[in-house]
Amino acid sequence: LDYQHVQVPFEITLWIMLASLAKIGFHLYNKLPSVVPESCLLIFVGLIMGGIIYGLNDRSPPVMDTDIFFLYLLPPIVLDAGYFMPSRPFFENIGTILLYAVVGTIWNVFGIGFSLYGICQVKAFRLQDVSLLHNLLFGSLIAAVDPVAVLAVFEEIHVNEKLHILVFGESLLNDAVTVVLYKLFRSFCEMPTIKSVDVFAGVGKFFVVGLGGVLVGLTFGLTAAFTTRFTKDIRVIEPLFVFLYSYLSYLTAEMFHLSGIVAIIACAMGMKRYVEANISLKSHTTVKYFMKMWSSVSDTLIFIFLGVSTIGENHEWNWPYICFTVIFCLIWRALGVLVLTFFVNRFHVNTITGKDQFIIAYGGLRGAICFSLVFLLPDFHRKKLFIAATTVVILFTVFIQGMTIRPLVDLLAVKRKRESAPTVGEQIHIRFLDHLLAGIEDISGHWGQYYWKDKLEYFNSKYLQKILLREYDQPKSSIVLLYEKLERKHAIELAEAGQLGHAPSHPSLLNNARTVIMDQKLEDTLNPDVLENIQEILARNLYRIRRTGPAYNRHTLPGDTEPAEHAKEILILRRRSL
Amino acid sequence: LDYQHVQVPFEITLWIMLASLAKIGFHLYNKLPSVVPESCLLIFVGLIMGGIIYGLNDRSPPVMDTDIFFLYLLPPIVLDAGYFMPSRPFFENIGTILLYAVVGTIWNVFGIGFSLYGICQVKAFRLQDVSLLHNLLFGSLIAAVDPVAVLAVFEEIHVNEKLHILVFGESLLNDAVTVVLYKLFRSFCEMPTIKSVDVFAGVGKFFVVGLGGVLVGLTFGLTAAFTTRFTKDIRVIEPLFVFLYSYLSYLTAEMFHLSGIVAIIACAMGMKRYVEANISLKSHTTVKYFMKMWSSVSDTLIFIFLGVSTIGENHEWNWPYICFTVIFCLIWRALGVLVLTFFVNRFHVNTITGKDQFIIAYGGLRGAICFSLVFLLPDFHRKKLFIAATTVVILFTVFIQGMTIRPLVDLLAVKRKRESAPTVGEQIHIRFLDHLLAGIEDISGHWGQYYWKDKLEYFNSKYLQKILLREYDQPKSSIVLLYEKLERKHAIELAEAGQLGHAPSHPSLLNNARTVIMDQKLEDTLNPDVLENIQEILARNLYRIRRTGPAYNRHTLPGDTEPAEHAKEILILRRRSL
Repeated sequence: LDYQHVQVPFEITLWIMLASLAKIGFHLYNKLPSVVPESCLLIFVGLIMGGIIYGLNDRSPPVMDTDIFFLYLLPPIVLDAGYFMPSRPFFENIGTILLYAVVGTIWNVFGIGFSLYGICQVKAFRLQDVSLLHNLLFGSLIAAVDPVAVLAVFEEIHVNEKLHILVFGESLLNDAVTVVLYKLFRSFCEMPTIKSVDVFAGVGKFFVVGLGGVLVGLTFGLTAAFTTRFTKDIRVIEPLFVFLYSYLSYLTAEMFHLSGIVAIIACAMGMKRYVEANISLKSHTTVKYFMKMWSSVSDTLIFIFLGVSTIGENHEWNWPYICFTVIFCLIWRALGVLVLTFFVNRFHVNTITGKDQFIIAYGGLRGAICFSLVFLLPDFHRKKLFIAATTVVILFTVFIQGMTIRPLVDLLAVKRKRESAPTVGEQIHIRFLDHLLAGIEDISGHWGQYYWKDKLEYFNSKYLQKILLREYDQPKSSIVLLYEKLERKHAIELAEAGQLGHAPSHPSLLNNARTVIMDQKLEDTLNPDVLENIQEILARNLYRIRRTGPAYNRHTLPGDTEPAEHAKEILILRRRSL
Repeated sequence: LDYQHVQVPFEITLWIMLASLAKIGFHLYNKLPSVVPESCLLIFVGLIMGGIIYGLNDRSPPVMDTDIFFLYLLPPIVLDAGYFMPSRPFFENIGTILLYAVVGTIWNVFGIGFSLYGICQVKAFRLQDVSLLHNLLFGSLIAAVDPVAVLAVFEEIHVNEKLHILVFGESLLNDAVTVVLYKLFRSFCEMPTIKSVDVFAGVGKFFVVGLGGVLVGLTFGLTAAFTTRFTKDIRVIEPLFVFLYSYLSYLTAEMFHLSGIVAIIACAMGMKRYVEANISLKSHTTVKYFMKMWSSVSDTLIFIFLGVSTIGENHEWNWPYICFTVIFCLIWRALGVLVLTFFVNRFHVNTITGKDQFIIAYGGLRGAICFSLVFLLPDFHRKKLFIAATTVVILFTVFIQGMTIRPLVDLLAVKRKRESAPTVGEQIHIRFLDHLLAGIEDISGHWGQYYWKDKLEYFNSKYLQKILLREYDQPKSSIVLLYEKLERKHAIELAEAGQLGHAPSHPSLLNNARTVIMDQKLEDTLNPDVLENIQEILARNLYRIRRTGPAYNRHTLPGDTEPAEHAKEILILRRRSL
């Protein structure tokens, strides 16, 4: 027996196997996951395993390694989150999300830090040796909402898209703030005196860490898109590039002390559109499937390890401090959401309701990131107290809040996610309104979100697509491609039946594709795919008409495009539709 | 900058990235891969990189780590090979393959070992200090044909299936022999005296290592199949189990000093059939795609590392020894193939032609396994000579033989793989002959391959399927399922067109599914899928008739099944077809 030789891969495989089998186990009893979130069940499994290890070895079970967590377990989850991020609601609410993520997190850090310092002054609690700086450091790691925990719970309760993106987006983007504040306070702890210059440097770092992360991510994302232009002959390694480049963006950002989470999200969101167009359908299925699989395994392992690491003798149970930590986390978050939402609602037509505010405040779950950060703290005599407080906060938020949030959502009748996809009419309407608003913003000189979206779209189609996509010349309309495919299929069928002579001259239909859709004969092919095609072509044409209209176009001088041409195009379109 | 922190994953990712980009690079120039095999190009890239590292650092570049090779790079390739192994030609030729793999490899080991010992006796070469045992040890590692190298070359030249499976099967199964002989001679080298008991123990080990590997593999394979019975609710982690269980089988076999390669192949071949039936179609696409991707990356990395490791100062260039090694490798392999094929041809109707024999002998490529084994040798003063000889043999076989084998195949007009799939007629014919031969073998009491195949099939459908498949009750005939699907689709189409009233009463056709196929109206649906269904139902019915006939059935006594029942079934079948 030569266990030494295979130990590392063998144990890793066994842990993953355990995680997967635990997942299967929960789903065998359908009732269990509908009441208790999977994250709670997994922590519970971890607690049991930790207890067994502790009982057998009579010493603390191994703690989740911080490096393993940040280098191997976290990236798949964040990549999955970034790749499947619904971009429309995200960018529509980006202002609010950033406000919560940046201002909200800072508010929480200082609120929790200062009030815990106040608690430390009470002589009865015997905590006078915990300095303000240590309390602020603790605040910086306990304040941040955890994306893994939020995702695990919010994926199951199906609240409406806006609410979901507000909580989830905040949990992702607060990483930059957490990184900066945590490192700032940690270095302050080791400094003899703190100058005001250091504080200003810290504020400057926010922008470097956040924007640097975005820059690194976009660079790798666009390189990934560019690489997939050349994979036509070796389809089989296409999915690899998606994973390699996003992982590289994460590692590079971490290497330069930027926000890895922000980088990988920027990379995933930046590459998605182009990669999807370049790679084959099967590659894309593999990418999607593997991303989901990987993040699901990582997620499972994190919660199990969280449970395992909880058992042991790493804790100092000073209950006043721990209880006040939980209470302050709840209070400051609730206050922060209330105050920030008040300002948000003043500047938006589509306000955030009271119910939504409650769920946002209540959904501020803490998770494995806090846990890893608290173990990363430099050794000092109260580290075990911080570990104990962090553990209790995580267990409280995941178990108590995680298990009660679903009944609360039901009770408050919070608006749910609509189950059905929007109809063609709705989609066209939304798209039309987008163009209308972009035009209005352009004319009125207001640089709002529609204006920037329109500019970005223009830049994309004018430059990026030509560089990053394999076929950058005007692609054939998808409905024409579909029609050709149907034509071919029909011809083959006729040939097989030996009836080719009697076939009506279908190719003639190709010229008036528009009438074909209205045609009674083909109406029975109006399945969802076709509808999607119709809506796409309509949207595209609406766009082109708007684009050629010079009235409010800032790229060309009035008179650049002749009005006659415009009229001509409309005439052509009309004649075709007759 | 904090490079230390991310070094390990960063460098691994960069190496994989380099490998993938190199692959893309080759395929940008379509002419290159059609002349030079990819393996040669990759070794060449490796040589250049090794040269650069050597030039910059002025010391030998890092050698491929044996542990990394055997634990991480080899398993994906072997898993891929096992999973996509064409099982029919493999089992049809299993006797010949085993003969080549076991007897042929032993023949080569001793042939090369003894003749190199002869060379060492020539005083002019100054090699008298290399003992017979060392020569045999060297022979045991240089004799084995390498599956990675064979796969890389043979996948590109498209020889006929039988020839391919003979060379490839040998390269996979000789692992058990190589493991045993290599470890035997290595332990002999360290023993003061060798008793005859040790030799016999070595012979016994063959069976333990080989059959033990098969047993471990099948155990894990069937467990994997059993596990996928319960993944219906969490489709997303289904692909994981295929990888986890096969990897565990490899690691477990290695742990017990059994043949990991044999284990993982047995695991993959054992699980494939059941896993495919249990998991969803998308999961299956992911499994296939990811296996191909992973093995392709491993393969690329191996050849690049092979190139990198070649550069440096690990070599002792004693040219007589090296040249004679190459010559003996060629001669003994050629002789071995000739002699063994002589015996094989005496017992088979379908003989191996002279051309085939030449390609089998010429296709005996050596690769990364020899290379890793030679570095695993215990340190002794002539190790560098063995490393040099192994490097030259690998480069010679991969470059010279690998590049000339395609022109030779063209020149000799070796029978190629047929491009088209076999027709329905052929397939039914083959299946029919199988049953006929199984019956004949059963009657005549000859325990041939058809007899065992039939028994295995019986065992499979009677016991294994019921345990391992999710829906183990008699599945509906696939043609009925297809027909129902078409019916549903047609009804929906009619409903959409508002013509439901005029629809002919299609459901009545359901009762005489057999006539439907012959029906002119539906003949235009005879696309390949339908043909496959027809052939399946025909094959299944042929089987059932044969199964119910008691004349030569060894499971029931004559008279157990009444002949009247048999006649009745035929009558029912006839009436239905009218």
